[in-house]
Amino acid sequence: MNQEYIQPNAWSIIEEGFDPEKVKSSESLFSIGNGAMGQRANFEEDYSGATFQGSYIAGVYYPDKTRVGWWKNGYPEYFAKVLNAPSWIGINVAINGEQLDLFTCKKVENFKRELNMKEGWLSRNFKATLKSGIEIQVDVKRFLSLELDEVGAISYTVTPLNNDVTILYEPYLDSGITNEDSNWDDTFWNTTAVTENGEQAFIEAHTMKTNFHTCTFMESHFFLNNDALHIKPVTRKKPQFIAFMYEQDVKQNEKFTIHKFGGYTVDRNHSADKLVSAAKDVLAKTEALGFDNLLNAQKESWAKIWEMADISIEGDVKAQQGIRFNIFQLNQTYLGKDSRLNIGPKGFTGEKYGGSTYWDTEAYCIPFYMATKDQQVARNLLKYRYNHLEKAIENAEKLGFKNGAALYPMVTMNGEECHNEWEITFEEIHRNGAIAFAIFNYYRYTGDYSYIPEKGLEVLIGIARFWHQRATFSTAKNKYVILGVTGPNEYENNVNNNFYTNYLGQWCINYALENIDKVSKEFTADYDRIVDKTTISKSELEQWKKVADNMYFPFSEEHDIYLQQDGFLDKELITVANLDKSQRPINQKWSWDRILRSPYIKQADVLQGLYFFEDQFTTEELERHFDFYEPFTVHESSLSPCVHSIQAAKLGRMEQAYQFYLRTSRLDLDDYNHEVEEGLHITSMAGTWMSIVEGFGGMRIKENTLSFEPKIPEQWKSYSFKVNFRNHIIKVNTSHNETTFELLEGNPIAIMVNDKPVTVSMK
Amino acid sequence: MNQEYIQPNAWSIIEEGFDPEKVKSSESLFSIGNGAMGQRANFEEDYSGATFQGSYIAGVYYPDKTRVGWWKNGYPEYFAKVLNAPSWIGINVAINGEQLDLFTCKKVENFKRELNMKEGWLSRNFKATLKSGIEIQVDVKRFLSLELDEVGAISYTVTPLNNDVTILYEPYLDSGITNEDSNWDDTFWNTTAVTENGEQAFIEAHTMKTNFHTCTFMESHFFLNNDALHIKPVTRKKPQFIAFMYEQDVKQNEKFTIHKFGGYTVDRNHSADKLVSAAKDVLAKTEALGFDNLLNAQKESWAKIWEMADISIEGDVKAQQGIRFNIFQLNQTYLGKDSRLNIGPKGFTGEKYGGSTYWDTEAYCIPFYMATKDQQVARNLLKYRYNHLEKAIENAEKLGFKNGAALYPMVTMNGEECHNEWEITFEEIHRNGAIAFAIFNYYRYTGDYSYIPEKGLEVLIGIARFWHQRATFSTAKNKYVILGVTGPNEYENNVNNNFYTNYLGQWCINYALENIDKVSKEFTADYDRIVDKTTISKSELEQWKKVADNMYFPFSEEHDIYLQQDGFLDKELITVANLDKSQRPINQKWSWDRILRSPYIKQADVLQGLYFFEDQFTTEELERHFDFYEPFTVHESSLSPCVHSIQAAKLGRMEQAYQFYLRTSRLDLDDYNHEVEEGLHITSMAGTWMSIVEGFGGMRIKENTLSFEPKIPEQWKSYSFKVNFRNHIIKVNTSHNETTFELLEGNPIAIMVNDKPVTVSMK
Repeated sequence: MNQEYIQPNAWSIIEEGFDPEKVKSSESLFSIGNGAMGQRANFEEDYSGATFQGSYIAGVYYPDKTRVGWWKNGYPEYFAKVLNAPSWIGINVAINGEQLDLFTCKKVENFKRELNMKEGWLSRNFKATLKSGIEIQVDVKRFLSLELDEVGAISYTVTPLNNDVTILYEPYLDSGITNEDSNWDDTFWNTTAVTENGEQAFIEAHTMKTNFHTCTFMESHFFLNNDALHIKPVTRKKPQFIAFMYEQDVKQNEKFTIHKFGGYTVDRNHSADKLVSAAKDVLAKTEALGFDNLLNAQKESWAKIWEMADISIEGDVKAQQGIRFNIFQLNQTYLGKDSRLNIGPKGFTGEKYGGSTYWDTEAYCIPFYMATKDQQVARNLLKYRYNHLEKAIENAEKLGFKNGAALYPMVTMNGEECHNEWEITFEEIHRNGAIAFAIFNYYRYTGDYSYIPEKGLEVLIGIARFWHQRATFSTAKNKYVILGVTGPNEYENNVNNNFYTNYLGQWCINYALENIDKVSKEFTADYDRIVDKTTISKSELEQWKKVADNMYFPFSEEHDIYLQQDGFLDKELITVANLDKSQRPINQKWSWDRILRSPYIKQADVLQGLYFFEDQFTTEELERHFDFYEPFTVHESSLSPCVHSIQAAKLGRMEQAYQFYLRTSRLDLDDYNHEVEEGLHITSMAGTWMSIVEGFGGMRIKENTLSFEPKIPEQWKSYSFKVNFRNHIIKVNTSHNETTFELLEGNPIAIMVNDKPVTVSMK
Repeated sequence: MNQEYIQPNAWSIIEEGFDPEKVKSSESLFSIGNGAMGQRANFEEDYSGATFQGSYIAGVYYPDKTRVGWWKNGYPEYFAKVLNAPSWIGINVAINGEQLDLFTCKKVENFKRELNMKEGWLSRNFKATLKSGIEIQVDVKRFLSLELDEVGAISYTVTPLNNDVTILYEPYLDSGITNEDSNWDDTFWNTTAVTENGEQAFIEAHTMKTNFHTCTFMESHFFLNNDALHIKPVTRKKPQFIAFMYEQDVKQNEKFTIHKFGGYTVDRNHSADKLVSAAKDVLAKTEALGFDNLLNAQKESWAKIWEMADISIEGDVKAQQGIRFNIFQLNQTYLGKDSRLNIGPKGFTGEKYGGSTYWDTEAYCIPFYMATKDQQVARNLLKYRYNHLEKAIENAEKLGFKNGAALYPMVTMNGEECHNEWEITFEEIHRNGAIAFAIFNYYRYTGDYSYIPEKGLEVLIGIARFWHQRATFSTAKNKYVILGVTGPNEYENNVNNNFYTNYLGQWCINYALENIDKVSKEFTADYDRIVDKTTISKSELEQWKKVADNMYFPFSEEHDIYLQQDGFLDKELITVANLDKSQRPINQKWSWDRILRSPYIKQADVLQGLYFFEDQFTTEELERHFDFYEPFTVHESSLSPCVHSIQAAKLGRMEQAYQFYLRTSRLDLDDYNHEVEEGLHITSMAGTWMSIVEGFGGMRIKENTLSFEPKIPEQWKSYSFKVNFRNHIIKVNTSHNETTFELLEGNPIAIMVNDKPVTVSMK
């Protein structure tokens, strides 16, 4: 665990004191984003210490040529990667000709960083003593506008404290950047034009191969003690770089400020040859507004998001800070405006994992977006997969499937597979079930069936075909089996009859059949179109059914539980509690084979099935499985604690649920996995939200009715959250004495509370 | 399969006609070696077409930094690779200033390549028409001397056919070479000196990191119509290159010849600062002998090898050519002089697979070397592993084992692991059993027990400790199980209770216990030393025994066979005969997961166990297992057909045995696997030898007695081979009518023929 240097605070992430060792971690933790772009909290001025530079544009990626030790047939030849984009935040700062660089300053005092989550801005303040002995105060504020999502703004002020000085600000753009995570050291960007008009500068560059065209731009304004100044710049230009040099004499204690506006226009939103003029348009708007008005708009935009999405916790500031950090980062990453985008596991905070979309989106993120946004947002996330259906069919064909069977990739950017570990890429096929489950979950929550006849059913058919073909008949078992898979517990590879996978496979077929039937009766025009397109036939559906009806599930009579996979009980069943602490985390201490033959579970696997399909199991069954599996679970996946927190809460084990909650909500803030410098765990943050709403709040949809079974951890005084359920906005407030439900929008609604009907009306 | 362009011939490999498409394949097939060095059959003169340049020095390797897609704990950081060495064979040839290059000549006629296996030389003859219209006849002969194993010799003659011309020969040395198989494009060689003395040239270079010092050297002599000529050369020198340019006017139909001698002196045999003088010594010897005498010595040396190792087959020239090619290549690769060397799977014919030593040596090669060489050679191969015992213990420690448990690496050069696929590196642990089996096999064959108390027992103890620790107790099965392994059938990964592995593990423990007991009684001094060194105790041995006595073996009552692993019968058991031919070879057509969940077997697995431990199973058991498993076997490993050939012969299925024999013996000549251009399959060639001697000849050691059950394929008239059994050299000659046994050396010896005692005496 980290040194926990982040200060507890309900609304801000605050770091005090400058420690070069923490720069990379803080660059991740203080990342900012606005859904369209995002960036690590790199310094504006030059920094010669260890840093991980990253600025990312949503949907802009590069297909890096795959590099493996040993090639396996079926690996994708290219591998889409999150791409470090040209930098627009840079401002070289020199005082009397001496470059400001915190790594080489004589002294840095009163260093403070704040990520204000309530208002959506990042600030940095410090006093630096340069080698020359000159002391300066530096005050920086930066944000990426939600209002104008192509632009970000920086206010950078230097105040000389012990001398009159000459200050040089050199705001620049730089497209000569590299990716840390590159397989062959390819050049990812081709810079085609570096232009300026005296005040504004533009770098036009497109990605190699994918040809995403971008214009990176900037414009700056200057103030002395808040009075506007006009300084004529000197231009410095290189093939992938442009800077304006602004020099100013500044007296002791005078404040010299630059407001730099910059950002990206991209051909997802403009035609490729109009990117500079689009950039000029957005700069005209920022110039008209100015930094302060744009910041005010930012505060308003975030206030709107918080109004719906906030969860407040009384009596536990660390828990409060944790959940707000999670909600804040999710909203920085994805706002649901564009169905071409999705939620990368690292959001805009790092490059790791390549690609963007994992099953995390369907299994963890969709519930958060359904409940805190308009339902169109979740629908957009579903549409993303619909748009990739053809590629999923191609992907399945590469692996030997046919007749329209669809296997969605493990990791993707544009529908193509972006991963190349055979045991995951080819075998972690349960992801295909999560995509079907999300369709079910969307309809269950929103009641909007229209998505299924319009789009979802085609996806369900492709997925059902996959499971039908992937299951094979075992003469020995006289059942259908699913051999050679990796379940959600990636600490097992190439196992047979993973319970979760088999259960999900069976469910997917049945759910597809159920919806084919419903659509055939109720949406005949859609049905005809779909039959025409997919050529499903009665005999094909019968074959599916045969597989689903005869699916094999490994079960232990002795323990009265489903087994994670065939042979699980052959392992040495030593619980985590009895495992020497020096051996953990096992993924850092043990070789892979040792992990594989151990009983240790990375994240919920059988329990993930009991979470998805809770109403198909009794509470006693859940308890037996939880008691059997949790003691072997090492929770070395960021996606593990949330599911366990929800289930512990359901089983009334509030202390355990609370501990799991803390672990999920402060995973990055407390750096449980020693890797926060690589970026944040964005998708698991939605799991944190579920821990409160589904875990403590006990929110479920039961028989088409919103239902709660509220509980509260001992450590809290109260907590409250809001959900948007079918256009009713309901605020739930739970204390140790009572839970209140407030209807803030919509008609009166009948809900269930602890299995009793309650009607919630506007006050 | 290849176009089968190699002409059938009992003693030579012959290619006629020049086809640039076949150059890389022929470079492999015509490779030459002398145990100390070897090279692909690259042309001496410049060639601008597709070629794979390779010259290799035994024991000289480079630890390349590992490159993988996804790192797993336990992977070796570096990975020893067979290293392309500085080239000494090059001779640039220019006629009237025009470079000879077969790829760009106007015409190439009467092109013929011959690898004369009987005499150990390679020749090439052709008529070329240059762009200028000049026609020349070129005749080249090359060999690597067995007599002076640091040197090779080339005789290169150009005869102008339609003009008087000026011919330039430019023999050169070049250390600016690269490896095709490099992970990071590192420079592998550091050239420290390029020197010459007017007639001789030397490049001193050492490998980076491993610091193997080498001197590559050359000297040339010239002849016009066989009369010696002295030509004063012009020297051309670059930092990693040196050439002497010799120019001569040559009249039409005159023969202008260069004899180039070259090779390597290395610091395995000389001190690093004496390599040039060692080179001068060897050049003095070659100069004294001259090309023809050195060639005569070569013929004699090969005659001696063939005298003992030859297998003659009457009536089937392709079978004859196949077995001689195999025996020839094995002898080119390894002669058993040096226990620091071993038998790489590609010998000196390619770079692929990195490292050098696989379990192939113990499982396939040792029987060949035991029977065709002095027993010291096999003992040297055992010593190689003894010398690596400490590294094997370190390797096991990296994977979490302790207390002196030894896991020999999957692939190695110096005892360190050189492979990085987790499913193989960490899980294909049966290799550890083969190393113990070889000790048993050596004693069984040679009767030389002394190796075991001196060295072998320590290895057996380390290996037994590994199996004891690797097996875990399954409460469910009430037996010890071995989870998460890859058996010899690499088309299964991470399986539980692979029969072969479990059986071998049990056997290793029992064999170690048996020998500890024997040594404790009969070699007390050795025993005390070993107890002292290994700290084995009675209680430890009891724990081993408990594991061996309670080992689990998967068994099918229905089929009355051992199962390859748990769950094998859950597969869709469609035989290879019923698999669409378009799907084969499956390793090129199917994604890895599909292969893994199929029933298809790459090479003998359960059957490998029944081969090793034949006397522990009845012939009926063998037949049942063969009938069950062979139909699922795709034989996509070069090591597969030989074991099946032996077993088919034992079961009296001679046609099947013959087909398997052809496939193993002509695997490379007929390029069954479409990959001969990467190099030859050297280690499986010993399996070809076993197919005849153990398969058709039925040779076994039964109760300490040499035993035969000769059979003969219908297609052959007769075949004969010799074996050296405990210093008795016995020639076995089998025809359809009878088998004769001739004692060529040693005292009369009692053997068994078809289970009847026979005494063989000198005639």
